[in-house]
Amino acid sequence: SVAVEVPEASKINTLIDLDAEKVVNMEKLDAGKKAVYCRCWKSGTFPLCDGNHVAHNKATGDNVGPLIVTAAKAE
Amino acid sequence: SVAVEVPEASKINTLIDLDAEKVVNMEKLDAGKKAVYCRCWKSGTFPLCDGNHVAHNKATGDNVGPLIVTAAKAE
Ligand code: FES
Ligand code: FES
Repeated sequence: SVAVEVPEASKINTLIDLDAEKVVNMEKLDAGKKAVYCRCWKSGTFPLCDGNHVAHNKATGDNVGPLIVTAAKAE
Repeated sequence: SVAVEVPEASKINTLIDLDAEKVVNMEKLDAGKKAVYCRCWKSGTFPLCDGNHVAHNKATGDNVGPLIVTAAKAE
């Protein structure tokens, strides 16, 4: 039999800005605004979520989803 | 020779809230505040980044990093 070692750790980004040393995004939200940000690295509108996490989860059995950030309204 | 098929798509979350159907976080930022959010799914302070993306990138050759969001100051 042939034993195949699959590393436990693997790349999670296979799509976004692959030539960058590290993909860090800086976003600004106006007061009262909300944004939905991608954490699956499969979005066509990265750093925003476009819903592609659904297909990723279905294909892989993963359970990842977006981060939703709301900027508080000015008092 | 032995050909090994490694699936192109694989799970990216091996740590966070694995029993959840989908991990979605809702965060609120006060005016003028900034937060650094994890997108590597390896943070001990998820949904915040704790710097563990550095070890993940080193171990895998990945290039992922956090999302930094700033809520605008009230005018
Ligand atoms: S498309 Fe990536 S989290 Fe939704
Ligand atoms: S610890 Fe996950 S992006 Fe920094």
